[in-house]
Amino acid sequence: MIYSPDDPIAALATAAVSSALAVIRVSGPGSLSLLSGLVKGGRDAARMKGHTIHRLVLHDGEEDVDEVLMAVYKAPRSYTGQDSAEIFCHGGLPVIQRVLSLLTRSGFRPAGPGEFTQRAFLNGRMDLTRAEAVNEIVRAKTDKARALALQRLAGAIEGRIKAARDALVELRAALEVMIDSPEDEPGDVIDEGKLATTVGLLESLTGTYRRGRIYQEGVAVAIAGATNSGKSSLFNLLLRQERAIVSEIHGTTRDWLEGMVSLSGIPVRLFDTAGLRPSSDPLEIEGMRRTEEVIRAADAVVYLVDARRGVAAEDREFTAGWAEGSPLLPVWNKTDLPGVPPAPPGYVAVSAATGQGLDGLEKAIADAVLGGPTRESGEPLIDSQRQRDLILRALAALARFREARSRGITPDLLAVDLSDALEALGEITGEVTSAEVLDRMFSAFCVGK
Amino acid sequence: MIYSPDDPIAALATAAVSSALAVIRVSGPGSLSLLSGLVKGGRDAARMKGHTIHRLVLHDGEEDVDEVLMAVYKAPRSYTGQDSAEIFCHGGLPVIQRVLSLLTRSGFRPAGPGEFTQRAFLNGRMDLTRAEAVNEIVRAKTDKARALALQRLAGAIEGRIKAARDALVELRAALEVMIDSPEDEPGDVIDEGKLATTVGLLESLTGTYRRGRIYQEGVAVAIAGATNSGKSSLFNLLLRQERAIVSEIHGTTRDWLEGMVSLSGIPVRLFDTAGLRPSSDPLEIEGMRRTEEVIRAADAVVYLVDARRGVAAEDREFTAGWAEGSPLLPVWNKTDLPGVPPAPPGYVAVSAATGQGLDGLEKAIADAVLGGPTRESGEPLIDSQRQRDLILRALAALARFREARSRGITPDLLAVDLSDALEALGEITGEVTSAEVLDRMFSAFCVGK
Repeated sequence: MIYSPDDPIAALATAAVSSALAVIRVSGPGSLSLLSGLVKGGRDAARMKGHTIHRLVLHDGEEDVDEVLMAVYKAPRSYTGQDSAEIFCHGGLPVIQRVLSLLTRSGFRPAGPGEFTQRAFLNGRMDLTRAEAVNEIVRAKTDKARALALQRLAGAIEGRIKAARDALVELRAALEVMIDSPEDEPGDVIDEGKLATTVGLLESLTGTYRRGRIYQEGVAVAIAGATNSGKSSLFNLLLRQERAIVSEIHGTTRDWLEGMVSLSGIPVRLFDTAGLRPSSDPLEIEGMRRTEEVIRAADAVVYLVDARRGVAAEDREFTAGWAEGSPLLPVWNKTDLPGVPPAPPGYVAVSAATGQGLDGLEKAIADAVLGGPTRESGEPLIDSQRQRDLILRALAALARFREARSRGITPDLLAVDLSDALEALGEITGEVTSAEVLDRMFSAFCVGK
Repeated sequence: MIYSPDDPIAALATAAVSSALAVIRVSGPGSLSLLSGLVKGGRDAARMKGHTIHRLVLHDGEEDVDEVLMAVYKAPRSYTGQDSAEIFCHGGLPVIQRVLSLLTRSGFRPAGPGEFTQRAFLNGRMDLTRAEAVNEIVRAKTDKARALALQRLAGAIEGRIKAARDALVELRAALEVMIDSPEDEPGDVIDEGKLATTVGLLESLTGTYRRGRIYQEGVAVAIAGATNSGKSSLFNLLLRQERAIVSEIHGTTRDWLEGMVSLSGIPVRLFDTAGLRPSSDPLEIEGMRRTEEVIRAADAVVYLVDARRGVAAEDREFTAGWAEGSPLLPVWNKTDLPGVPPAPPGYVAVSAATGQGLDGLEKAIADAVLGGPTRESGEPLIDSQRQRDLILRALAALARFREARSRGITPDLLAVDLSDALEALGEITGEVTSAEVLDRMFSAFCVGK
């Protein structure tokens, strides 16, 4: 479904939970006139100056709905580029529901996901890499992810793509000279250095995608191990809160528990799983089936061994049988207890009870997930699969271009590959785009953005 | 602890969960200058016009923190009556945390609960009944509660208290004439009608307190009954969502589940409890102990009987032994099944499977909780215990006044009782108040309001 870009739309921009304040956003031609009909005492919002705030009472014709503040924005100086407003109402759920239903009954359509940002793009307020960064900064889960998304929002990706595009436009201009006047200038005017720099720039951008995704989307890490190896204690320690019920009874964790934690700037969905052990209890068997699913789906598995007990047959069986693609990190737990032997080679030693060794474990998890230690470079990281795929398309066209040139293909045919590369880069920023692409992209946004 | 009313303060006004947008509020003399130091490019917020909105980048001296909109309010035309601002930042949690920590590191103190509204009161922007209504409208759980709180926010209680106060001020003036010139005017100038009307007004206000509390705070209703009587099905039906795990296995609900639902405008915390039955499983015994606690603490208990099974010995034991203060509503469930006998007298018949009889049950629960059917009068209801207690204090003083008058006490002594009543009414609106009262009241508010 493609949104109609000129409907008056409305959406809650804050979370649908009770708080001091809620913000409801509207946008579209005519939206200020529609709002005027809902203002007690009949003030004309369409005549208010842009970027001003007004105190008023919303009224539904029968009763007062709420005392609110309303911010008015006039086209084109607004987020969407259209006449827009933000209503700051009391943040109780019944108030929010009542204002939203008043708006939809008065001619506003509930906005779809990302529809405000889609309008901002359509009205030339931002390119598509910035539009995607709007969603990325809202969804960032760690401060590192916030900083990376803000860098993209400020145009770091757009700038690099435009630089590559400018270089390719120059190359095409040179090709066109060759095509137009083959006799005047028989020599090769293609700047190989510029081409190589552009390819290098694009290759290094795509190379950031995996890390960009990990910092933005995060990873799933499962804590596995025999019952009583201290999984719930480690889970609680990493989460720094008493989330899992830690007890001495075997099989306390029936299904699995999930918590979010930032490890070296990586958002980690941490799973505490049920201990694997033979059982005839149907609930427990179901719990273990789910545990196995969680472990198989994880991006990394922390496998706990009770240092008092040592590596048992079931531990060896689990680690030896580990053939999944994700890294397995063996951990030697309970090192605080007296007389426990040192960790075997390859094991990270910790005490989930005292926190000893926790920093080393956090770092080991981050390195395992990123595929090795990384250095801080300040370069922007790509988080968008769409952008990555389009850069790869541009790189493939440039590879064809170079290969064809090495075979002495005529300039008019070479120009086709260059145009393919330019089109791919144009799609990244949105200079070239389709309704389907926009629709797919913005459907991933939250409503109200 | 008493807040210092002139510190620059800051708080998140929206919920601390991820959403499109978050609002961070600041207030206090000098707060706009402090903000100016955080604006990239150094714009002076103190020179911006009140009630205007500005797009800018917050910067912590080392890196950009977020691109935001900032609304500026100038004293005294602001919520608090002080120079204030609202920062609209991207609604990701790391963004929120980063902006808040930037503000506190820059000289803002984290605001206490209700501190913005407390300043609004201290600076004469609203009386205490409206200040309390601010918290009430934010915390309203149903649309009915929203409407009642908005009525108070618009001054319905303040108006009635001031009317009573004006009447008593007139009576006192008449008394003073009697005190000053006992010879000139020996007759009794106290307007009995006015006094009776005032007492009636105050009595009817206190009479609304119980209903006001029920609509605002809600009640707890527990669904009890033998295992398999359909408790979880009824719970789900009332919640209109699949919250409880309904299964055919006895004892599926181990502890209790809780859900919120609006029944005839009353916010009801509905509890689905574990079925009571003999067990040796320690987890299940613990579950039943908790169930009994929940049932004992409930404002009403819906007791389900499986109509196929009929009233069993354990049901009779439970209902006969019900000596708690809260109403017990016996319910005849599974009326959809063929051949079940009609409900015994006093039972409400429903089918939790089909929804048959649900409206009647909802009404029966609401009536049981309110203490009988009620009519809609449009009168404001009091939700504040503080207001109720002060009205009772005023009424007690007026009763003393009348009693003393009937015994022929001299006007100068009568004036003492009248002054007591006036002082109590003055405390309701805040014309008379103490730091302790304010502190206690606003500590019940949410932060950011």
